Order: sequence, then C-alpha cells, then structure tokens
Amino acid sequence: MTGFARARVKKMIKEAGAWRVSADAIDRLNEILADYTTNLAKYAVEIARHSGRKTVKESDIILAATK
Amino acid sequence: MTGFARARVKKMIKEAGAWRVSADAIDRLNEILADYTTNLAKYAVEIARHSGRKTVKESDIILAATK
Repeated sequence: MTGFARARVKKMIKEAGAWRVSADAIDRLNEILADYTTNLAKYAVEIARHSGRKTVKESDIILAATK
Repeated sequence: MTGFARARVKKMIKEAGAWRVSADAIDRLNEILADYTTNLAKYAVEIARHSGRKTVKESDIILAATK
C-alpha cells in the first residue's frame, strides 16, 4: 500500500460535504492521490536536476504544479 | 493543519527519485495535495447528490477525477 492514511482521506471527503462514504471510494481517491503525487514529484525531481541541484526545493514543487 | 502525514509525503518524493527534499517543499506539496483532494471530493459529493444519493461511491470519485 503506497497511499495516505485512509482515516485522513475519509475525513477530507466528509469535510467536503459527504454524508457517507463507501470504503472503495476512499481507496480509489487514495490511489488517485498517490498517482498525482508521484507524477508531480517526478516532474519536480526533473526540474531540480535540470537546475543542477540534488535537493528538491519548494520552487521545484511550485513549478511542477503549474504544468 | 489539514494535510497528510509529512513523513508519507516526503517518502513519496524520495521514491520519485529525489536525493534530498527541503522541508518547505514537503509542506508545499502537502498543501497542493490537500487542495486537490478537497476540490475532487467536493465535486464527487455534488455528483452523488445529483444522482440522489447521500453516499459518495467509488464511481463518483472516478467521474469527478475525469473532470
């Protein structure tokens, strides 16, 4: 399992206005989030390398998110 | 703080190939993820309501993610 804490994901769906949330809805959103995070992070790593750095900085994340 | 566990976010950035990650990079990605989750979840809640349901199902999440 490579996602985030299920309880946290569920809480965020509830905070978005949901009365009830099915278990597979939580798992699916968690998967989508993990994919989104991986893609964005990979792009941020590329940007950092392109800039000659080994450290991923906040500005790399910001630039990756504007893709 | 409304995001995910920092250690988890950091691990995912490292798994994406980062050598090092600055603390503010982790926090920024966490913020972006929280916004993304909230927006997607709100849309899924709207879709469920539109379908006359009080329960957010996996199919609502999938449809919301194709937006």
